[in-house]
Amino acid sequence: MPYVNIKITNEDVTPEKKALLIKGATQLLVDVLGKNPNTTVVVIDEVDTDNWGIAGETITVRRQQGK
Amino acid sequence: MPYVNIKITNEDVTPEKKALLIKGATQLLVDVLGKNPNTTVVVIDEVDTDNWGIAGETITVRRQQGK
Amino acid sequence: MPYVNIKITNEDVTPEKKALLIKGATQLLVDVLGKNPNTTVVVIDEVDTDNWGIAGETITVRRQQGK
Amino acid sequence: MPYVNIKITNEDVTPEKKALLIKGATQLLVDVLGKNPNTTVVVIDEVDTDNWGIAGETITVRRQQGK
Amino acid sequence: MPYVNIKITNEDVTPEKKALLIKGATQLLVDVLGKNPNTTVVVIDEVDTDNWGIAGETITVRRQQGK
Amino acid sequence: MPYVNIKITNEDVTPEKKALLIKGATQLLVDVLGKNPNTTVVVIDEVDTDNWGIAGETITVRRQQGK
Repeated sequence: MPYVNIKITNEDVTPEKKALLIKGATQLLVDVLGKNPNTTVVVIDEVDTDNWGIAGETITVRRQQGK
Repeated sequence: MPYVNIKITNEDVTPEKKALLIKGATQLLVDVLGKNPNTTVVVIDEVDTDNWGIAGETITVRRQQGK
Repeated sequence: MPYVNIKITNEDVTPEKKALLIKGATQLLVDVLGKNPNTTVVVIDEVDTDNWGIAGETITVRRQQGK
Repeated sequence: MPYVNIKITNEDVTPEKKALLIKGATQLLVDVLGKNPNTTVVVIDEVDTDNWGIAGETITVRRQQGK
Repeated sequence: MPYVNIKITNEDVTPEKKALLIKGATQLLVDVLGKNPNTTVVVIDEVDTDNWGIAGETITVRRQQGK
Repeated sequence: MPYVNIKITNEDVTPEKKALLIKGATQLLVDVLGKNPNTTVVVIDEVDTDNWGIAGETITVRRQQGK
């Protein structure tokens, strides 16, 4: 029944890696809280680097600066 | 003033169906809680089947297995 | 499999009304998109009127002004 | 450490305007609460006008009606 | 830089278990995507069983029925 | 019409400061994108320090360590 939302930048995240995130997050809820995996939902949001900011700057700008 | 967020997989959801979801969710808030529809916001997020997981598997994989 | 999040102010929302919101939102997804109700999740967030703003004002202030 | 999510319709929002939203939201948290900008995250979601509703109508329909 | 939100019902989740969820979700992002843990944020929302629904019913009702 | 969600830890945030966050976030959308303040919604979520993690640790633990 838990719901997990993972937000990451859309930088070459393959379907295989997404599948690993979903599998791992579901297992975490099973291991720590004994939740039922069959009703555990995981949603991954991929966000454009222009639309994600940290320290007041977009990730696009930070990548250009090698941060 | 309520805010409703509906997350679904992006599998052939037409603009007409989206309009019905928005109309229905707004009406639900009016009917149950007497909210003002003019300030009721509904946002629909369509999520790629690679990015949605249940039971530790992506929807893409589950669709391939006929689940 | 859909996920619905309803955000409302915490102003006397009874368990019966919450149950109606959950029932109605689930039925909406069944009716419009043919979704499976058994994996449709609805989460209601009740927000303090100090923590909700519209038109740049908190709901607390607007209630005091009879808005 | 704060997390800010800004949801807007995807109507010609340039990278420059997104950068201003990120800069401004971060500064707001610094000014009002003294938060550390280096761990303040801002994520902008751009939503299709078919997927955003207010007053029970999609923004697409409202734009056509000149609202 | 990732942001993870975990929503669960508020049924006896100890601070120790919350710490394990935070540690595990952060490590998952490091392992699968090579993300920097120092800017990985995890937020846990605990939701009242009256406010969480699945299959059109609240968790409160389902717990009473032994589901 | 925009929707802004601000998540912060629940550490002595007064109603006055919340009002400033709401006012400031609304004004930001007006200034940068010319949005209508009357339909701009801001919701503040205050999160327990046990429920917020960064760098794999809860804020509770980090505060104890003087971080």
